[in-house]
Amino acid sequence: MNAPLKNDRFLRALRREPTDTTPIWVMRQAGRYLPEYRATRARAGSFMALAQAPELACEVTLQPLERFALDAAILFSDILTIPDAMGLGLSFAQGEGPQFARPVRSAADVARLAVPDMDAELRYVMDAVRLIRRELDGRVPLIGFSGSPWTLACYMVEGQGSRDFATLKAMCWNDPALARRLLDILARSVAAYLIAQAAAGAQALMVFDTWGGLLGPAPFREFSLRYMAQVVAALKADAHSRDLPVILFSKGAGMHLAEMADSGCAALGVDWTMDLADARRAVAGKVALQGNLDPAVLRSNPDTIRREARAVLDSYGNHPGHVFNLGHGITPEVDPAHVEVLVDEVHAYGRALRG
Amino acid sequence: MNAPLKNDRFLRALRREPTDTTPIWVMRQAGRYLPEYRATRARAGSFMALAQAPELACEVTLQPLERFALDAAILFSDILTIPDAMGLGLSFAQGEGPQFARPVRSAADVARLAVPDMDAELRYVMDAVRLIRRELDGRVPLIGFSGSPWTLACYMVEGQGSRDFATLKAMCWNDPALARRLLDILARSVAAYLIAQAAAGAQALMVFDTWGGLLGPAPFREFSLRYMAQVVAALKADAHSRDLPVILFSKGAGMHLAEMADSGCAALGVDWTMDLADARRAVAGKVALQGNLDPAVLRSNPDTIRREARAVLDSYGNHPGHVFNLGHGITPEVDPAHVEVLVDEVHAYGRALRG
Repeated sequence: MNAPLKNDRFLRALRREPTDTTPIWVMRQAGRYLPEYRATRARAGSFMALAQAPELACEVTLQPLERFALDAAILFSDILTIPDAMGLGLSFAQGEGPQFARPVRSAADVARLAVPDMDAELRYVMDAVRLIRRELDGRVPLIGFSGSPWTLACYMVEGQGSRDFATLKAMCWNDPALARRLLDILARSVAAYLIAQAAAGAQALMVFDTWGGLLGPAPFREFSLRYMAQVVAALKADAHSRDLPVILFSKGAGMHLAEMADSGCAALGVDWTMDLADARRAVAGKVALQGNLDPAVLRSNPDTIRREARAVLDSYGNHPGHVFNLGHGITPEVDPAHVEVLVDEVHAYGRALRG
Repeated sequence: MNAPLKNDRFLRALRREPTDTTPIWVMRQAGRYLPEYRATRARAGSFMALAQAPELACEVTLQPLERFALDAAILFSDILTIPDAMGLGLSFAQGEGPQFARPVRSAADVARLAVPDMDAELRYVMDAVRLIRRELDGRVPLIGFSGSPWTLACYMVEGQGSRDFATLKAMCWNDPALARRLLDILARSVAAYLIAQAAAGAQALMVFDTWGGLLGPAPFREFSLRYMAQVVAALKADAHSRDLPVILFSKGAGMHLAEMADSGCAALGVDWTMDLADARRAVAGKVALQGNLDPAVLRSNPDTIRREARAVLDSYGNHPGHVFNLGHGITPEVDPAHVEVLVDEVHAYGRALRG
C-alpha cells in the first residue's frame, strides 16, 4: 500500500484545478548535470546497466528531489526500452547515440515484431516504478513515460539517431500500409507499457514524441498524432490507467496543438519556440499546458533565469492548468545551482501571480 | 556587359507576376549529391579551397544547370565567408562542421570587429559572381546570398556548430547591449556583402537564417528578424541592390511569417513543416513564397516524388508568387535522377495548374 500524496499540485494542475502556486518539474531532471547522477552512472558501468537495475534507476530518479523542491518525479529510463524488448538489440556506443543491431526495414521484419511481455522483458521497468513509489513515500507524484510510436519507429527503422530519419519517412511514402502496421504494433506496445506502469504505481503518464516535428503537417497527423491518439484511447479503456492524466509532447509541433488537444490527453507539452499565451488560445481550454522555458536559459545567470521564468508564467497568466517545465530536456552543462534558482522563482512568482 | 536574361520565371515569380509555369531551384543544388561536384571538390583539395577559387566556384555553380532544367543558379560559397574575412580563422575539420580559431566572446572581441573590405578579403566572392554571370550567359538569373546576422553570430560566438548555440543565447540574455553591437556590425557587413554581390552581377539576394528557429518568439524578433530587416533596409537604400528581390529564410520559424513579411523583403522561404496554403494566409499577399518539399522526399521513389511535388503545388494553388524549392537543403544521399524527376514534374504540373 503506497503512502497518500502530500503534494498534489502537479496532478491538480493537469486536471486544470486551482493550485497555491505553479508546479514545476524539469525534463531530464535526473541527468548528467548532477554530479551524484554521474557517480551512480559510473558505478553502474553503462547507461543501459543503470536503466535496467531498478534500485539504481530509483536512486537517480530521487536525486533531483533531494536538491530541489520539484513537484513531480519522473521514472528514470530510456525511451527505447520497447524496441529493445522486441529483440532489436539496443546498445549505446561511447559518445554516440543509440544503435540497434537489427533495424526494421522489410515487411518480414515488421511481421516478426510482437507486443513485449510487460512482466518478462520489461519487468525491470515495473520493478523500478514500484520501488520508486515506495521510496517516494507520497512526497510527489511519479510520472511514467514512453517514447511515442512515431519516435520509436524512427530509431527502429533508421537503426540509430539521424538528422531527418529519412528511412522511416521513405517507408511512409513508399509503403504506407507497412508503416501503419509497424506504428500500430508500436501503439499497442506503448499502451500496454504505460498501462503496466500505471498498474505498478505511476500517477501520470507522458508520451515523448521527440521526432514528430520532423514531419510535414499531413504526415504528422497520419503517422505521429494518429498513433498517439490510439495510445490515449487504449489508456482510457483500461481500469489501471483510466484516471491517470496523459501528457503528450511533440517537439517542434507547436502548429499542431489544436489537433493534439482533441486526442483525449489531459495536457500538452510545449517547446520554447512559441508563447504560452498563443498555445492557450490554440487549445481553447481543452487541456493543461506544460512548459516552456528555453533550456538554454539555465546556462545564463540567476537574474536572467528569474526574469525569463517570470515571462513564461506571465505568458500563461493567472489561469489554472499550467505545469512549469523547460521546453526540452535540461543539458549536461547546466550548473545545478541554477535549477534551484528556477524552482524557487517559479514557486514564489506563481504564488504572487495568484495573489 | 552581361547577356539579356532568357528565362525570367524565377524573377517574375518573386515579383508575384504571372508565369507560364512554377519556377524551381533547389537549396544546395551545387552539392555533394552530384558526382561531378565531388570530383571538383577532390581536385580543389578542401571545401575552403573550392569556395575561394572563383573558377572552381563557377564550375560547381553551373554543374546542376547542365543536368536539370532549373530556373535559377545560386552562387556557390560558404555562409561563413564574412566572419572568416573578419579574421576569425575559419577551418573545416575532416567530418566535422566549421570551426573558428578565434571565437567572439567578450566586449573586446566585438570591439575588434570591422566590416570587411569587399574588394580585398571578399574579392574572391565578387570575382566568382562576375565569372558565373558571364558563364551563365543569360540562361537563368543568379542568386547571391549571405548567412543572416543571427546565424553568423551563432557560429562566431560558439566557435563551431552546436545543437542550441547556448553561448550566444546567454550573451543575448546576460548582456543584450553587447549582443546588439555584434549583430549590428554583422547586419552592416551582410548588407555591404550583398550590395557588392549585386554590383558584381547577382540578380536576386537571399539571406539564410539557419538558426533563427532556435529562438523563442521574443528573442527571434529582437535578435534575428530585426537585423534581417536592417539588412533589407540597407539593400533598398543602395542603387546597386535597390531593385533586386530579397528572399529571407528562417528555418523553423513558420510561426513568424506574418512579421517577416513586413520586413520589406520580396519573398520568404518556408520549411516543410507547414502547408503553403497556411503560409499564404499568414503573409496575406505581401510577399512571394519559396518552398517547401520535405528534402527527405527525394530519398523515396519517383512516384512519391511526383505526388508530393504536386501536393506542394496544389497547396499554394493557382496564384502568382510561388518559387518551388525544398524546405531545406538537398542531402548528399539523393540520387541525381530523382532531382530530374522533381524538376520535370514541377514544370509539367505547374503548367497544368495554370491551364
